[in-house]
Amino acid sequence: MIDLRSDTVTRPSDAMREAARTAEVGDDVYGEDPTVNELEARAAEAVGMEAALYVPTGTMGNQVAARTHTDRGQEVLCERESHIYKWELAGLAQHSALQARTIDGGPRGTITPEDIDAGHVATDGHRAGTGLLALENTHNSKGGVAIPAEAIDAAAEAAHDLDVPVHVDGARVFNASVALDTPAPRLLESVDSVLFCLSKGLGAPVGSMLAGSAAFVERARRHRKLLGGGMRQAGIIAAPGIEALSNVDRLETDHANAKTLAAGLDGIGGVTAAEPDTNIVVAGTESPAEAFVDAIAEEGVRASAFGDYRVRFCTHWDVDEDDIEEAVAGVRRAVA
Amino acid sequence: MIDLRSDTVTRPSDAMREAARTAEVGDDVYGEDPTVNELEARAAEAVGMEAALYVPTGTMGNQVAARTHTDRGQEVLCERESHIYKWELAGLAQHSALQARTIDGGPRGTITPEDIDAGHVATDGHRAGTGLLALENTHNSKGGVAIPAEAIDAAAEAAHDLDVPVHVDGARVFNASVALDTPAPRLLESVDSVLFCLSKGLGAPVGSMLAGSAAFVERARRHRKLLGGGMRQAGIIAAPGIEALSNVDRLETDHANAKTLAAGLDGIGGVTAAEPDTNIVVAGTESPAEAFVDAIAEEGVRASAFGDYRVRFCTHWDVDEDDIEEAVAGVRRAVA
Amino acid sequence: MIDLRSDTVTRPSDAMREAARTAEVGDDVYGEDPTVNELEARAAEAVGMEAALYVPTGTMGNQVAARTHTDRGQEVLCERESHIYKWELAGLAQHSALQARTIDGGPRGTITPEDIDAGHVATDGHRAGTGLLALENTHNSKGGVAIPAEAIDAAAEAAHDLDVPVHVDGARVFNASVALDTPAPRLLESVDSVLFCLSKGLGAPVGSMLAGSAAFVERARRHRKLLGGGMRQAGIIAAPGIEALSNVDRLETDHANAKTLAAGLDGIGGVTAAEPDTNIVVAGTESPAEAFVDAIAEEGVRASAFGDYRVRFCTHWDVDEDDIEEAVAGVRRAVA
Amino acid sequence: MIDLRSDTVTRPSDAMREAARTAEVGDDVYGEDPTVNELEARAAEAVGMEAALYVPTGTMGNQVAARTHTDRGQEVLCERESHIYKWELAGLAQHSALQARTIDGGPRGTITPEDIDAGHVATDGHRAGTGLLALENTHNSKGGVAIPAEAIDAAAEAAHDLDVPVHVDGARVFNASVALDTPAPRLLESVDSVLFCLSKGLGAPVGSMLAGSAAFVERARRHRKLLGGGMRQAGIIAAPGIEALSNVDRLETDHANAKTLAAGLDGIGGVTAAEPDTNIVVAGTESPAEAFVDAIAEEGVRASAFGDYRVRFCTHWDVDEDDIEEAVAGVRRAVA
Repeated sequence: MIDLRSDTVTRPSDAMREAARTAEVGDDVYGEDPTVNELEARAAEAVGMEAALYVPTGTMGNQVAARTHTDRGQEVLCERESHIYKWELAGLAQHSALQARTIDGGPRGTITPEDIDAGHVATDGHRAGTGLLALENTHNSKGGVAIPAEAIDAAAEAAHDLDVPVHVDGARVFNASVALDTPAPRLLESVDSVLFCLSKGLGAPVGSMLAGSAAFVERARRHRKLLGGGMRQAGIIAAPGIEALSNVDRLETDHANAKTLAAGLDGIGGVTAAEPDTNIVVAGTESPAEAFVDAIAEEGVRASAFGDYRVRFCTHWDVDEDDIEEAVAGVRRAVA
Repeated sequence: MIDLRSDTVTRPSDAMREAARTAEVGDDVYGEDPTVNELEARAAEAVGMEAALYVPTGTMGNQVAARTHTDRGQEVLCERESHIYKWELAGLAQHSALQARTIDGGPRGTITPEDIDAGHVATDGHRAGTGLLALENTHNSKGGVAIPAEAIDAAAEAAHDLDVPVHVDGARVFNASVALDTPAPRLLESVDSVLFCLSKGLGAPVGSMLAGSAAFVERARRHRKLLGGGMRQAGIIAAPGIEALSNVDRLETDHANAKTLAAGLDGIGGVTAAEPDTNIVVAGTESPAEAFVDAIAEEGVRASAFGDYRVRFCTHWDVDEDDIEEAVAGVRRAVA
Repeated sequence: MIDLRSDTVTRPSDAMREAARTAEVGDDVYGEDPTVNELEARAAEAVGMEAALYVPTGTMGNQVAARTHTDRGQEVLCERESHIYKWELAGLAQHSALQARTIDGGPRGTITPEDIDAGHVATDGHRAGTGLLALENTHNSKGGVAIPAEAIDAAAEAAHDLDVPVHVDGARVFNASVALDTPAPRLLESVDSVLFCLSKGLGAPVGSMLAGSAAFVERARRHRKLLGGGMRQAGIIAAPGIEALSNVDRLETDHANAKTLAAGLDGIGGVTAAEPDTNIVVAGTESPAEAFVDAIAEEGVRASAFGDYRVRFCTHWDVDEDDIEEAVAGVRRAVA
Repeated sequence: MIDLRSDTVTRPSDAMREAARTAEVGDDVYGEDPTVNELEARAAEAVGMEAALYVPTGTMGNQVAARTHTDRGQEVLCERESHIYKWELAGLAQHSALQARTIDGGPRGTITPEDIDAGHVATDGHRAGTGLLALENTHNSKGGVAIPAEAIDAAAEAAHDLDVPVHVDGARVFNASVALDTPAPRLLESVDSVLFCLSKGLGAPVGSMLAGSAAFVERARRHRKLLGGGMRQAGIIAAPGIEALSNVDRLETDHANAKTLAAGLDGIGGVTAAEPDTNIVVAGTESPAEAFVDAIAEEGVRASAFGDYRVRFCTHWDVDEDDIEEAVAGVRRAVA
């Protein structure tokens, strides 16, 4: 079975497992886990922020960020297909009493200064005002689109001009960095916080990092506790996370594999697949996505239904070039 | 000063004042105010529903409805410019932990079955599912657009096919009824609840009605209490509300006045104003709306900025044909 | 039927009805209702505060106060039997995400500086800290107990020493003022906000006032809107409210009637009733309260079950000395 | 430094570390992590429940349980010093809009059927009713008190008679089981759900288990996702958790050490320490707790301030009999 449902399925490497075994640990609720502290320091550096916080999941990191930046009742500007809006069980409303104001970012999910100006709401007696701009890079639902630094800068500048802070859901921000050949700190230099996952393309078993200013992270720490994210000897999973930070360069391979996959899929029966930016291929199908996914599973290929006639394939650490070839062959058999 | 800012500014008639003076009252928290009970019965009948609940404001009625229909974390499908989403301080998120999913209803603010099918979200591990379709009729922000019964029916059927209940923010539903020459019960026969205001075109000083099935109203009563809407000898304001129910026919005059106003405004300097469906004229301006509003105020005409270059004028009981003529003249002077 | 269930059942006087009929009105959401503005000014003066806000109910006023004073997640210190904790549908948690920390105020419901010091919670990583002290005067559940200025001062000083603001649920604060022969401004001089009802002993049909500093009331206005309390030509009900403010002195009569009632009830069969401070008599019964209430209703007397073997009787404007005599006779018949 | 601040500071054993290294893993969000699945099955069996859910922290487990059992606005009956009320950032209010109704459980933190009957609130127009009884065993704040099966049964029966479900915060329920020589399934046989920690006395680095009926756990899984607890290859930390389940018997040693410690501390200067039930010694001090804690830290002993004149010492895996002796000596030096 070649599992292309998500890059979340990656299994930790031997080095990560060894790191877990030998990690020096302490109680992170007391701030005394040296491995967590090291991971937080390195993660902050990796994205060019002052400080970082280890969280068990990307969802928790995004939700903590939203709550830390805002007051209840404010609005969050975000892309219509963004993860924070679409896949987090309405957490913006549930945890933070925030109202989402969605922007249609088009095929590449890009939010422009014009979108921000148009979507911005001033505070008055009937409206609590815009409290946050939430970007996503790479943009998962649009097919792993890598949004360049200039677009991020422009959006952030427009938001800041309106006194609105900017959070980036960078679950896969290193994929964007590699694809754009732009260092992550440069990609993020104009925003206020970023969430990135250790557990997707970077291969760690568990965990994500929320980074921002030291003051932001200090406040976020309390919200992490509120959501139940204050773990104890978390060094055991932070240690593989430190390993994961050294895996940024290998994302290049996932991207190459994704390009090969897209080229292979495009044109099979009614399948269409444009060249992807990163490690996510969203293919159009003629048959309903659920049926398509079931059919290819019988041929040994797993992918995710991603809309009525759209199927997502993710490349990752655990699949190599041969797997890709085999996956294409499997899809071909299924469609035939 | 001719006040066209809103039809909320109407002052109660002598008959309403006399009704307030002589109302038989009791304690409505105990369900013992005969005037409130009579108003609730008459209001239910006026919209063809089983039962109704008196609420101090339209905002409370809409928010109580949303909470009564849904579970927290669900999504509410609503038009992008709808009042419940735009002007109620993010109440959907704040009171009921609901996530709004907005639909762009175009220039007439109409939500189609296709919009509903596209916007509907099924419940799964990442999504709490769609819990409510909220329509608005007339649609205030689009300029008092009256949405015909067939469009409401089609939307409601699409929602019901997905097991999603339908609420209509009918703050001005009798304006729609009059404009479309469709009885309100017919306009609402396919939906599950409706909010309408006694205090806008119908002229009551205070209050709105939330109507639906008896079971719905029973549950809504508790949510009204939660929000602080359980008043005592409310018959004093319910009595003018009963009077207000007899004012439906006179909305025709407001609509005629609005047509006269739009025709008069259109073409003055850079002002554009299409023929309105009901009592709301949203005019386009060349100068910024705030400045325009200030300028016409100096000439004795009050209107509301309604966007960067849009100004809203509402006709209502307290302005007559002569006032409209004078208002047009005032705007002409201001623009000149 | 002599209705002693609550002083909320009072019917408005002819003067109030006439005031409703002739009230000068405007749109209060725009701040343009002169009668509301006058009521707010007079109410502020009556309690010695800078500003006041008209709200449709006492529950809304208390909940708006709690939200305006606090941040979500904080704790509210309040008496275990206080209205804000016991009878408002968990509004502290629901509207404002506040945790109640209750104090057992003993038979007179008094919260002491020692209670406050013991109950105060400092902010740390696991606790959001105490955000509000909510007092109640008179204390309804304890039987209309009037808490003297010195006790309020001491509690407020203890709270302020801990940087905790103080709100008084003074639904019946003028009963306390009259019973203690202490002007309301003196009773409230050390607290930050007060809610009082126009619709209980003062006899207005609808409405309560939330008073505090001008800045507090400004912020409270937005929360009133959020809860759906922004009414339009509210002058119609504010005018009787202005009348109600002149009814403070007549509360003396209610208190005298309550004393007569308690003396009459005490000793009938198994009934016990201590001399009340104000207009509320909480009697102990030998038979279960629900059965007792049903039994006396058959003899023309209405009261409220108020615990398993406790029944509450309220005196008010609509009952006079003769009614009290008759009520005692009715209870005697029922018990016999 | 002998660290007796908490049993959360235990460092994982070599066996746990090796288990982390070799764990078979999968993506637990898809339900495909075999190690998590095994842990969940074993944990359910260990407490005699149908199913269990792995959560990153005890706080998340308690909060998920509260939300899963209740409707918003309901009340939770819990002990005044219980963890779920005192140390979880008002999560009951914040996550689930629940109002806590606290019971003073006396020196042993026991909630009786009488307490439950007295604290129970029926649903009516002003009250949302009691939705949950939350017990704690062992009771941390009372000094690791082990509450016997009979007391749990009696409380649970009283709650169930009122249709109120029962959750046990059993962060240290195996300490209770060992101290009482009662199997955990027997201790919990009358309740509906239990949270227990792998990361305290059992020594796992991270994680807790929420157990209950299969239907309860199914619904809890979604709330775990909402709170951001849906981890991926969680087998890496679940594997040490499986190891931890075999550590129940060794808690006996912690209890013996705690008894030795209490005996040693009691009588040093002004220190008082009663014989503990389990692994927690709460000592009374003459000097303020914060100062006391600082003073003993200088002598190599760490403990937690636990009130103005109370200090908590926890024994655990990482301290042995010699450490206890040394700790007593250290405290003696500090006090002298």
